[in-house]
Amino acid sequence: MSRTVYVNGAFVPEEAATISVFDRGFLFADGVYEVTTVLGGRLIDFAGHMARLRRSLAELAMDAPADEAEILSIHRELVARNGIEEGMVYLQVTRGAADRDFAFPPAGTKPSLVLFTQEKAVSDNPAAEKGLTVVSVPDQRWARRDIKTVQLLYPSLAKMEAKARDADDAWMVENGLVTEGTSNNAWIILADGTIVTRPRSEAILHGITRSAVLRLAEEAGHRFVERPFSIEEAKGAAEAFITSASAFVMPVVRIDGAPVGAGVPGPLSRRLRQIYIEEARRTAI
Amino acid sequence: MSRTVYVNGAFVPEEAATISVFDRGFLFADGVYEVTTVLGGRLIDFAGHMARLRRSLAELAMDAPADEAEILSIHRELVARNGIEEGMVYLQVTRGAADRDFAFPPAGTKPSLVLFTQEKAVSDNPAAEKGLTVVSVPDQRWARRDIKTVQLLYPSLAKMEAKARDADDAWMVENGLVTEGTSNNAWIILADGTIVTRPRSEAILHGITRSAVLRLAEEAGHRFVERPFSIEEAKGAAEAFITSASAFVMPVVRIDGAPVGAGVPGPLSRRLRQIYIEEARRTAI
Repeated sequence: MSRTVYVNGAFVPEEAATISVFDRGFLFADGVYEVTTVLGGRLIDFAGHMARLRRSLAELAMDAPADEAEILSIHRELVARNGIEEGMVYLQVTRGAADRDFAFPPAGTKPSLVLFTQEKAVSDNPAAEKGLTVVSVPDQRWARRDIKTVQLLYPSLAKMEAKARDADDAWMVENGLVTEGTSNNAWIILADGTIVTRPRSEAILHGITRSAVLRLAEEAGHRFVERPFSIEEAKGAAEAFITSASAFVMPVVRIDGAPVGAGVPGPLSRRLRQIYIEEARRTAI
Repeated sequence: MSRTVYVNGAFVPEEAATISVFDRGFLFADGVYEVTTVLGGRLIDFAGHMARLRRSLAELAMDAPADEAEILSIHRELVARNGIEEGMVYLQVTRGAADRDFAFPPAGTKPSLVLFTQEKAVSDNPAAEKGLTVVSVPDQRWARRDIKTVQLLYPSLAKMEAKARDADDAWMVENGLVTEGTSNNAWIILADGTIVTRPRSEAILHGITRSAVLRLAEEAGHRFVERPFSIEEAKGAAEAFITSASAFVMPVVRIDGAPVGAGVPGPLSRRLRQIYIEEARRTAI
């Protein structure tokens, strides 16, 4: 199978989907991205992803590659052309192609825009029944994790470190406190049912799913608090889970080899996953 | 003019020099690079750049894209085809193209290899007579600056911050001590003639020119010490300079607006530049 991919104005077969070697995304990691999940052929929280994209672009003084109506229509076109019922649409914007120089290229240099789809069973994910195992690693990333840049080498290395240690993912730790997972936000639930996740700052990605889950938890009457926690506290928690656009709410059942709670997906994590998926289905566009 | 560029086995016009949008260099900044300077049509310290490339690849468990004899012959072919007397050959290796996944692609995935030239007057650079002005910025990069990855967004932002503050470059500061410049190593010379630069560690790039200058300074009988220094100490130094493959030894005459020494390129900085260029001409291949 060959996907249809969008590159700078054209829909092309994936084999022909190329960018210049002078693209600053390739030479300087001077690019940002979003991953929007598709459920029932529709886009989950597209407005949230566009708001975060706007923020990433603004933080880096990068021009928008197209207006949001156009970006939405490219998403829909790719979902339709590739027949995606469940999966993701990946979008990347870079500062464009220019001769290599640390200084930004001249104003007016056209940003690059690339989108492609990935098929994946997101709602009926067997990992949600089994739960994930995570290991802790030091957080060695740059300081501005709130900007969703393609500087993803360290998360990729951390993911491989997790695999080498027979785990599904890694939680990154800085100054004794968990920042987040390699591509997701980290959460614990205390014995009294309080849901805990780290507050937004430059230290973590401002997860779209994170915000939705906080809102839905509040609406469902659950106690929650935004504060950092340590690996030790997480190991002793009643439940743990991660959130991301494509994993939704995914229980964590082991941290550094130790079971969390009963070592199986906890009831509140499962409930939050269910609530989130119902809401996502209801509001997808 | 259109340069000839090398991409994965082919010499192509720069307009046709493209890589897949699925290349991990584009999606994850999962790539490393080297810049070798050309003087009189020959390559400076090619062996040093290849040794550092080998180390970068090993640290990231990335396969070599070709053997070093072949990489040398690509360098020479590009220099010849593009008629480069003075300038640089840029080389980038990435983990190759694969469907997007934080985990590395299957073993055997072919790494990507891209090389291109840039023409630049490196020996007769007017900046060497005038000296550079630098400003200090916090070092917000990831922890492994000893690996020469393409995660260069922060150095690029720092360069733009320097321009906004009417300076030529930025020196990055961590825990009160200078790490390095945006794409160069930082040095000062004390009143007693002692040359000071930060020792190699994961905090800084292991500059090829840095090592050469240390060796040449020692051979010329100059005192030197490898230790970190603060911006305050640098402002009070007799001289300051930076080293990089393409800037060689380049005097720094102002730091955060304050003149260093007499506010003009210092005699020892100028002498080290001269010694380095003579040695480079003598040993280039």
